[in-house]
Amino acid sequence: MKAAVLYGVKDLRVAEVDKPRIGPAQALIRVESVGICGSDVHFYRDGRIGDVVAREPQVLGHEFAGIVEEVGPDVATIEPGMRVAVEPSFSCGECEFCNTGRYNVCPNQIFCGMPPGPGALAEYIAVPARFCFPVPDSVSPLEAAMIEPLAVGVHAVELSGLRPGDTVAVLGQGPIGILTTQVARTCGAGRMFATEIIPERIEAAKRHGADVAIDAGTTDPVQAILDATDGRGVDITFEAAGAVETPQQALDITAPGGRIVLIGICPAEVVPLNLTAARRKEFVMKWCRRFCHDFPRSIVLVERRAVDVASLVTHRFPLDKVVEAFELLLDYRDGVMKASVDF
Amino acid sequence: MKAAVLYGVKDLRVAEVDKPRIGPAQALIRVESVGICGSDVHFYRDGRIGDVVAREPQVLGHEFAGIVEEVGPDVATIEPGMRVAVEPSFSCGECEFCNTGRYNVCPNQIFCGMPPGPGALAEYIAVPARFCFPVPDSVSPLEAAMIEPLAVGVHAVELSGLRPGDTVAVLGQGPIGILTTQVARTCGAGRMFATEIIPERIEAAKRHGADVAIDAGTTDPVQAILDATDGRGVDITFEAAGAVETPQQALDITAPGGRIVLIGICPAEVVPLNLTAARRKEFVMKWCRRFCHDFPRSIVLVERRAVDVASLVTHRFPLDKVVEAFELLLDYRDGVMKASVDF
Amino acid sequence: MKAAVLYGVKDLRVAEVDKPRIGPAQALIRVESVGICGSDVHFYRDGRIGDVVAREPQVLGHEFAGIVEEVGPDVATIEPGMRVAVEPSFSCGECEFCNTGRYNVCPNQIFCGMPPGPGALAEYIAVPARFCFPVPDSVSPLEAAMIEPLAVGVHAVELSGLRPGDTVAVLGQGPIGILTTQVARTCGAGRMFATEIIPERIEAAKRHGADVAIDAGTTDPVQAILDATDGRGVDITFEAAGAVETPQQALDITAPGGRIVLIGICPAEVVPLNLTAARRKEFVMKWCRRFCHDFPRSIVLVERRAVDVASLVTHRFPLDKVVEAFELLLDYRDGVMKASVDF
Amino acid sequence: MKAAVLYGVKDLRVAEVDKPRIGPAQALIRVESVGICGSDVHFYRDGRIGDVVAREPQVLGHEFAGIVEEVGPDVATIEPGMRVAVEPSFSCGECEFCNTGRYNVCPNQIFCGMPPGPGALAEYIAVPARFCFPVPDSVSPLEAAMIEPLAVGVHAVELSGLRPGDTVAVLGQGPIGILTTQVARTCGAGRMFATEIIPERIEAAKRHGADVAIDAGTTDPVQAILDATDGRGVDITFEAAGAVETPQQALDITAPGGRIVLIGICPAEVVPLNLTAARRKEFVMKWCRRFCHDFPRSIVLVERRAVDVASLVTHRFPLDKVVEAFELLLDYRDGVMKASVDF
Repeated sequence: MKAAVLYGVKDLRVAEVDKPRIGPAQALIRVESVGICGSDVHFYRDGRIGDVVAREPQVLGHEFAGIVEEVGPDVATIEPGMRVAVEPSFSCGECEFCNTGRYNVCPNQIFCGMPPGPGALAEYIAVPARFCFPVPDSVSPLEAAMIEPLAVGVHAVELSGLRPGDTVAVLGQGPIGILTTQVARTCGAGRMFATEIIPERIEAAKRHGADVAIDAGTTDPVQAILDATDGRGVDITFEAAGAVETPQQALDITAPGGRIVLIGICPAEVVPLNLTAARRKEFVMKWCRRFCHDFPRSIVLVERRAVDVASLVTHRFPLDKVVEAFELLLDYRDGVMKASVDF
Repeated sequence: MKAAVLYGVKDLRVAEVDKPRIGPAQALIRVESVGICGSDVHFYRDGRIGDVVAREPQVLGHEFAGIVEEVGPDVATIEPGMRVAVEPSFSCGECEFCNTGRYNVCPNQIFCGMPPGPGALAEYIAVPARFCFPVPDSVSPLEAAMIEPLAVGVHAVELSGLRPGDTVAVLGQGPIGILTTQVARTCGAGRMFATEIIPERIEAAKRHGADVAIDAGTTDPVQAILDATDGRGVDITFEAAGAVETPQQALDITAPGGRIVLIGICPAEVVPLNLTAARRKEFVMKWCRRFCHDFPRSIVLVERRAVDVASLVTHRFPLDKVVEAFELLLDYRDGVMKASVDF
Repeated sequence: MKAAVLYGVKDLRVAEVDKPRIGPAQALIRVESVGICGSDVHFYRDGRIGDVVAREPQVLGHEFAGIVEEVGPDVATIEPGMRVAVEPSFSCGECEFCNTGRYNVCPNQIFCGMPPGPGALAEYIAVPARFCFPVPDSVSPLEAAMIEPLAVGVHAVELSGLRPGDTVAVLGQGPIGILTTQVARTCGAGRMFATEIIPERIEAAKRHGADVAIDAGTTDPVQAILDATDGRGVDITFEAAGAVETPQQALDITAPGGRIVLIGICPAEVVPLNLTAARRKEFVMKWCRRFCHDFPRSIVLVERRAVDVASLVTHRFPLDKVVEAFELLLDYRDGVMKASVDF
Repeated sequence: MKAAVLYGVKDLRVAEVDKPRIGPAQALIRVESVGICGSDVHFYRDGRIGDVVAREPQVLGHEFAGIVEEVGPDVATIEPGMRVAVEPSFSCGECEFCNTGRYNVCPNQIFCGMPPGPGALAEYIAVPARFCFPVPDSVSPLEAAMIEPLAVGVHAVELSGLRPGDTVAVLGQGPIGILTTQVARTCGAGRMFATEIIPERIEAAKRHGADVAIDAGTTDPVQAILDATDGRGVDITFEAAGAVETPQQALDITAPGGRIVLIGICPAEVVPLNLTAARRKEFVMKWCRRFCHDFPRSIVLVERRAVDVASLVTHRFPLDKVVEAFELLLDYRDGVMKASVDF
C-alpha cells in the first residue's frame, strides 16, 4: 500500500509499504481523510518535537477517519463497512489512570504518527477497535477527520466547568483555539473575547462565536479585555496560543475566582508567572491533555451542526501532493488554517 | 397606588393601597410587567399553597420587572431610572447558608407575593436593592419579568452538570419545562427528548429544542425513550411535570451513572420510588430549589437571544383585567402557557 | 479441590470440584479467607436474591483474599507468591462506562459467587489479574478479605463529598454501616450520629467513631437527631440500614443543602418518599453501587490502622464448618456481626 | 485602652488609644489572645507588605479571639459573655463574589491589622458580628486565636479534594504548612511527605502526621519523593513554603492527574514554571486565598482534638512585651514557630 513516509528532516516521500495486519482486538481502517497537525509539521521540519525523536522511516498523521475494512475475532463493537473516527492515543487500559477513567494521562499511551505509533498518512492503518467511534453518514470524511482536534476543544470546555452565560476569553485562534471558541459558544457561553495576530483568524473568530476579536499584534489584549469588562475580567480563559506571554495574559484577564485552562503547547522550557496576583484571586488553573472520551460528544456536535469543522480546512491535497501540503504549512501563507490529505 | 389584592378565596380585587416606603438598603420599583405563576393561581383558588396560608389581604405576584423609582441612602449598585429584574426571594444574608452561597435554602427567606412578602401585582413595590439586576434596553419589560422562571431552568441545568453532547430528557413542558428545554439546548445538549400531555406544549417543545417530543397521554414515555436509545436511557433527566408518576419515570429512563434533577412541585404528600433499580445504576438525584445567583446568567441568555422567553406569554392583560387572567389560568383552555399583567 | 457448593435452597455441601484453569490475563488465587456477606446468606436461604436466581451448583463467596499461585502469560502487574485482595466485580473494560472510569455501573459485570461468576468459598479461584490488589504483610488474611466491604464504605464517603468537620449520620450499623462510620470518622467528620436496633451494634458504633448512637428501636431517631442539632439536621446522611423507613428518615434529618448517600439494599419494591420537603432543602441524593477503584485506598486505610476491620468478624469457621457459618447468619443471634471462612 | 501601635518602621509602642465604638451590626470584643503572623512582622520590619503600606499609626494583629463585651442593636447571633474566634477579613456581603459564597475574593474586603482595618493587638476591637464564631469552653483562648491560621489549612485541604488514602506532600512546615499537614492527616490522607529546612520544624512535621519528613536543605526533595513513590509522585501537593523554587517542585513531584494547591506567599514578582511537563500530566492547580467559611469547621477540629494548634505557639508574651515578640520573630532563632500576645 502507499504511505507518506518520513525518511529524515524534510525528506518525506510517498512509498510502497506493507499493508498492516491486525491483532485479535484490532481493526483495519481504510483511511479516507487525514488532517495535518502542527506536530506533524514539527516532525517534518525538525525530525523531532521536543524530546520525541522520529525513528525514520516514520509514517506521520493522527487526525483521521476512514472505513472499517476488517476486524479481529475479539471485536464486537464495530464491523466492516462502518465509517469511524479514530481516537489516536492508544492507552493501555490496565494502569491506575485508565481504570479511573483518566486514560489521557496513561503513561503507556501509544500515539499515532509518533514513534512507535503507526501513522495515518497511509491507505490503511491497524488500530485497537475500542478507539474507533462510528460516525453517521451525514458527517463527511473530512469532518470525521476533524473530530480529533474538535475533541481537544470539547475536553477543554469540559475542564473549564463552563456555566450558562459565563464570560469567556480564548487566547489564540489557530485550529484548536477556533474550535474551543466554537464549543464554548455552543455550550452556553455569554460574552466571548478572542485574541489572535493573524488577520484571517481574527475574522474567523468573529464568524465562529467571538463577540470581540482583538488583534493582539496591534492592541494590548489584557488592557482591551479589562477595559471591556470594567476591570473585572472574564469568568473563564482558555490559553490556546502556545506562546510565552499568553499564560500570564490568562492570569491577568481572569476575574477573581475564575478558571484558566491551558491548552497550547508552550515553546519555552519555562514560563515566568506572577503567582501572587493569582493567589489573591484564588484561580483554578487546569492543563488540558488531548481529550478523554470526548469523541462521542464531538461527533454529536458535528452531526447536529452545532459546530463547523469543515471550514477549518482551507487547503486539501491528494496523497501524491503530501509534500506540498507540508511545505505550505511551514509558514502560514495564503491564509492557511489547516490542510488535509484526502484519499 | 393600585394593586391586585386577594381578600379571600377567588376574591381578588384591584384596590387602592398605600404606596410602600423604602428602607435605607431598599429600592422602590415601578412595576412594568408581572408574570402569573402557578403558585399565584393556587393562592387565588385555594387561599393557600400546601401549608402556606395567605393572610388576607395579600398582594400576589413574584415574576416581575420594573424601573427603579427611588433608592435608599445605602444603595450603591443601582440608581433611579434603571430597568431591573428582581429576584423575589429575599434571603437574610447572615445565616450559614447565605454565607456559603447557598442562599436559596436560607430558612429566613421572604418571598414576594407570599405572606409576609410584598406582592408585585401593584404599581410599586419596595425591595432590597441587592436583589435588583439591571437589564439592558434590548430586553423588553415582558422578557425582564420572565427572567424569574428562566432562572429556574438555568439553575436546573447548572445542577445537572450538563456536558457537551449529553442526551437529555425533560419531563413536562409547562413554562418551567419549556425553559429548561431551551436552556439545555443552548448549553450544548445532544439529542433531547420532551414529554408532555397538552398538544400545544408538545409543539412548543419541538420548536424550542426537543428532537423528540412525546405525547405522554397516548404513548408510554418510558418505553418510547428506552426504545429510542437502544435501552440505554439518557444522560440527564429533568422532572418538570410535578406529577406523581414522573419521578419514577425519571429513574426509569436515565442511563447508568446518570443525573436526575427534580424541579416540579409534586402534588402528593409522598411518592413511591423504586430505589433498588436506582442503586444499581448509581444515579445522582438533585432537587432544584428556585435559583441561586442565576439572574445575571439568565439576563445574558435573553439579551443574546439564546433563549426565547417572550413567546411563553400567550395571554397579556392590563391590571384592571387581572381577575380575567387568573380565571383563564384556572384551567389550561385556549392554549394558555403563561399570562402576564402589564402596566 | 474442595469448595462449598450450593445445590439448592439450604443445601450447601463441601464437595470436590475441578481446580480452575486460568486464561492469559488471569491469575489463580489460593484463597486464604472469605467473609460471608448478607447476599451469600440470601442465596443460601432462598436460592435467589431479588431477580437473580442461583443456577445450582453454585460456589458462593465474594469477600476474599489469598495468595497468587499462578499467572497467565499476559499478566505483568502481579506475580506468584504475592498476597492480594480481589475486587470481585469483573467489569468488561470495553464499554462506555468502563472507559469513563465508572466501571461499577458496567452492564457486563460478572460478580463472584453470583451466576455466572465463580465463588470464593473454594481452595482456588481464577480471576482477571487486573482486579487483584497487593496487600502488605502487615495486613492479615482476614483483614485482606474485609477490604471488599470496607471499599463500599470508602466509596460511600467519597460520594458524599465529606468536608472537614461536617456533621454526619449513619443509619444502620451492620457491617457496611459500621465501616462507613469508621471511614467518615477517619476522614475528618465532625459530630457523628449512628442509629441501629441491635444492642451490640449500638455499642460497636460508639467504639468506632459515633459520638451519639441511637437505639432506633426505642427512640425516634429523627426526633433525636433534630433535637441534638437544634432542628438543623446533619450535613451528610448515609443510609446503610436497607430498611423501608430509613430513606425517608435520611431526608428528615439532613440539613438544607445537605447530601444523602443510599447504600442499603431496600427490601421493598418501592419506597414512599416525601419529595416536596426534599426540594425545599435542595438535597443531593446519591446511590452507592459497590465501589469504584476503592481497593487501593481501602488497603491504605487498613495498613495505617486508620480503620479496624478485624473486629467486625465476630465468628470464624474452617471450610468444613461452612454450613454452621451460614446457619448462624440466618439470624443475628450470639451478637454476630460477620462470619468468615478461613483456609 | 492599651494597644500596640506601629508608628513607623520598627517603631512599635504600647500606647493609650480610644476604645472603639460599635455600629448597629457590630460587636465589641475584649481580646484574649493574638497570634503574630508573618505579615505582621513584615509591617513591623518594612512598614509595608508588597504594595500595601501601613498608614501609621496602625494597630497590627489579625489572628485573635476574645469575649463579646457588647453588641449592637441589630445583632442576633451572639451576645455579651460569649467567647468567639473572629474571622478577620470583613467582606462586603453585597458583591457578586459574596453572593455566590466566594467572599474570600471579595474586592471590598477590610482586613484586620492592615489599613484601613482595625488591629487586634489591643484590649478591645470592634468587628462586624457576623464574623464572630462562638468557641466552646474546652477550647482555650490561645487555641481560639489559632483558629485563623488553622482555617487556612482547612481551606487548602478542601480545595485539594483530598480523597481517602491519597498520598500527599506538604512543602514547607512553617505554621501554615504544619497545620495543613495536620488537617490532611486528620482528613484521611494516606502516606504523607513533608519538606522543610529548619530542624525543629522537620521534627514537628513528623509529630503532626508526616510519614516522611525531608530536610530540603541537605536532600533534593524532588528526587527523594519520586524515589519513595517509584517515580509516580503524590496525588496532592500543598505548597506552603512561599519560596521561589517550591512551586516548580510541586509540579515535579505530583502524579499524573494530580492536584496542586498553592498557599505560600511567594517573595518574587514572577516565578518560572515548566508548563509543558504540567500539561502532559494534566494537573489541576489551585491557589488558596485565606479561608472561606472555614471557621466553624476549624473550631470543630480543635474541639475534637483532631488537630493540635496549641503546640504551634512556642513563645508567649504579655502586651507590654510585644516588641520582644516581634524582635524574636525577625529571625527564626530559638526554635520559634509562632509567638502570641496574651491579655
